[in-house]
Amino acid sequence: MFSAATYAERRKALCARLTERGEKGLLLFPGHASSPMNYTDNAYPFRQDSSFLYFFGHDHEGLTGVINLDAGESWYFDQGFSMDDIIWSGATATPEELAARCGAEKYGEEKTLVQMIADAKKTQRPIHILPVYRADSRMRLVQLLDCGVMEVDTFVSTPFIKEVVALRSIKSIEEVMEIEQALETSYAMYANALSATRPGASERQIASILHSTLALAGSTASFTPICTGRGQILHNHEYSHILHSGDMLLIDSGAESENHYASDITRTFPVSGTFTDQQRAVYTIVLAAQEAAISKCAPDVPFIDCHMTAAKIIASGLRDLGVLKGNVDDIVDAGAHALFFPHGLGHMLGLDVHDMEGLGEDFVGYDSTITRSEKFGLRGLRLARKLQRGFVVTVEPGCYFISALMEQWEAEGTCKEFINFDTAKQFSEFGGIRIEDNVYISRDGHRVLGQQIPKTIAGIEGRMHASSQRLFQCN
Amino acid sequence: MFSAATYAERRKALCARLTERGEKGLLLFPGHASSPMNYTDNAYPFRQDSSFLYFFGHDHEGLTGVINLDAGESWYFDQGFSMDDIIWSGATATPEELAARCGAEKYGEEKTLVQMIADAKKTQRPIHILPVYRADSRMRLVQLLDCGVMEVDTFVSTPFIKEVVALRSIKSIEEVMEIEQALETSYAMYANALSATRPGASERQIASILHSTLALAGSTASFTPICTGRGQILHNHEYSHILHSGDMLLIDSGAESENHYASDITRTFPVSGTFTDQQRAVYTIVLAAQEAAISKCAPDVPFIDCHMTAAKIIASGLRDLGVLKGNVDDIVDAGAHALFFPHGLGHMLGLDVHDMEGLGEDFVGYDSTITRSEKFGLRGLRLARKLQRGFVVTVEPGCYFISALMEQWEAEGTCKEFINFDTAKQFSEFGGIRIEDNVYISRDGHRVLGQQIPKTIAGIEGRMHASSQRLFQCN
Repeated sequence: MFSAATYAERRKALCARLTERGEKGLLLFPGHASSPMNYTDNAYPFRQDSSFLYFFGHDHEGLTGVINLDAGESWYFDQGFSMDDIIWSGATATPEELAARCGAEKYGEEKTLVQMIADAKKTQRPIHILPVYRADSRMRLVQLLDCGVMEVDTFVSTPFIKEVVALRSIKSIEEVMEIEQALETSYAMYANALSATRPGASERQIASILHSTLALAGSTASFTPICTGRGQILHNHEYSHILHSGDMLLIDSGAESENHYASDITRTFPVSGTFTDQQRAVYTIVLAAQEAAISKCAPDVPFIDCHMTAAKIIASGLRDLGVLKGNVDDIVDAGAHALFFPHGLGHMLGLDVHDMEGLGEDFVGYDSTITRSEKFGLRGLRLARKLQRGFVVTVEPGCYFISALMEQWEAEGTCKEFINFDTAKQFSEFGGIRIEDNVYISRDGHRVLGQQIPKTIAGIEGRMHASSQRLFQCN
Repeated sequence: MFSAATYAERRKALCARLTERGEKGLLLFPGHASSPMNYTDNAYPFRQDSSFLYFFGHDHEGLTGVINLDAGESWYFDQGFSMDDIIWSGATATPEELAARCGAEKYGEEKTLVQMIADAKKTQRPIHILPVYRADSRMRLVQLLDCGVMEVDTFVSTPFIKEVVALRSIKSIEEVMEIEQALETSYAMYANALSATRPGASERQIASILHSTLALAGSTASFTPICTGRGQILHNHEYSHILHSGDMLLIDSGAESENHYASDITRTFPVSGTFTDQQRAVYTIVLAAQEAAISKCAPDVPFIDCHMTAAKIIASGLRDLGVLKGNVDDIVDAGAHALFFPHGLGHMLGLDVHDMEGLGEDFVGYDSTITRSEKFGLRGLRLARKLQRGFVVTVEPGCYFISALMEQWEAEGTCKEFINFDTAKQFSEFGGIRIEDNVYISRDGHRVLGQQIPKTIAGIEGRMHASSQRLFQCN
């Protein structure tokens, strides 16, 4: 946990912003219950709700936080512990000590919480909640709010969401340090994966190296790692293939820091240690797109402009390869490039790997100045609004040759004036490339976070060559 | 998956048993949805419901199975897939192919399922479900059954539960082979952990070895591994300590086979590679208790008798050490031994590590001949009823010195005529020992499953000594 003052200040800021807007009543933060896997007591590893973590810090099940906007005070509620808990799980601190650790002025038990909610309802004081994404949290709120299952959503408060997003969007130094801690783990994951990748290795072996590196660092994955020789399947979670010379391996993975901040890195590298000419050509395009998009990152720049910068470089590169044709601006206006770059440039990063996605993507990535496009390739852009100092974002363009999609567009004649489908088909065995880094928006521009993980062609080939040399010496 | 015939036969057997009891209507098997971690799309690794796996085999989200008792036919329902699914997750087989793989006669889409349930409700045909342990499954059933949140439970069917328990309790050869496959992974986990354990290693390092061994085997944990130098905390999931010479490391862990059958093994070994005299004395008692309990396992023997066998050996051993006093039968009748052996001897093992716990422990472990005791030490006994050929059970006695519990009993004077608290306190730094194997009940007796993982004192010390020798040579 951070210091008690950190949490107290965050709650104070939230309280001030909402009070200024004229909001009254209670802000309710239901912490997570454990999530059953195949029966109630066999649960997945516990993961606290990120907004609970941000404002109350505690990382175990059965907790509830309340901010009383009118009194300007915070309550920490837990369900206490019994002798059985001590026998099975060991001793824990008292509620009083736990409340103090997160700077909450008050603490209480379940019955006090239930009474507080009931009193608020009776006196028609507003009760504000954030959107609910876990069914067990919904069931808990049905109980606490004494309401119907879908009626829970009537307590979701847009001002509450907006002010939480405003606060969580701007990362403090200690939060950036957490992300950099997660990136240290990412660095080790990629170093180990690069060293182990060679023809004949399986996706599963490389994935197991990612997992054991995480475990050794005392970390967990911020999301299920993608580790695939078939990078064209964007969120491929299977590890069933053997890697062959000529394949590229795409790894998209992240770690959590001690306080659950995420890293999110993608690298694509040749299994043989050397890119083929075709791979080299496409990799060069994607890397140029990523570097140009990163260069553009600065306060007041709409992130959609960074996305379009990457889109144009990819369009231009694919035109040079004969896959696309025509004027680059026309290609991008028509969305023809999106056949090969069908996703958005990136997203916010913080306590969630898609930061605050649970609060509603449009609250996080869009605002009154910009609404989400319906166009293929842009509708998946998670962040479009102006960057601000303190944002941390991912920048992750990609280029993929997805046979099913190419066939569909050709059959429908979609963007046929801009696409040479016959040339594109020459890439049908190509797979996909994505390159992703985590970028902090500074006062004047940006800083790529973490120690650099090899991403230039020379850097990757040099590292892989050095690994295979070492192996040769060992044998 | 097993063959289509396996699933078809299981469903046929279930249908026959329930029809014989006079049951009619529909058996509804809602498969699992993905379980959100910190927002909807960032889910935990998918784990299917075990009864769905047993009767329908398919291992992905969004599925529902129905057995029509009256027509004697099975339906496989899935939610289909879109072009977006292909882009993000790759192509999947058609519903027709998937229905055939589990031998279901019929398949359909969501709307057919909704209509089928609505028709059944309208014509007052019974709809049977199993107990619900995931909130998202409950929400799904609220929709499907068009009923209130708690009203869902009125569809839970005791005959359905009992016949599922009857079938799942008796393991076929192919199921035992799955458990043995999981035990191969367990063997590797313990071999690697034993080799790496030495003073100065951290619990986390050993846990990471367990996790990476699982990952390399293409397996996952059947439950969160316990890996602790403080074995007296029974379900300690923290890995925060450094292991010192003189400590014992207790590892309780399990793997899943390809078709999600579990193993569940516990070993306790000295960090230094050599037991101290005190550790040796207690270890000898626990091992004798475990071996005697295993020896007793056979068809028609109530498992509670195996538990009591272990309890008496532990009581007798602790009396010899001066911790307990008086007649062994009197000690055990009074429950004084349970201060040191506070849990049950074991449980069923299968698709769940506590097999079928989600269906209700008492349906699994108790029957008309025996009801659960309220006594401390016995109330946690998950399995008490007569063993049958084909059961797979864990046998896992333990001995712990839990300071908080000893203090409580002494203060309350609980069983004071049988306990030398002053002697017991000499063990306050001892920790705990548990030894667990997985046992198949055969026609005439039993078979301990899997390749034997070192558990005698000589076996453990020999293995650890050999590991440290190898290390010495390498350095």
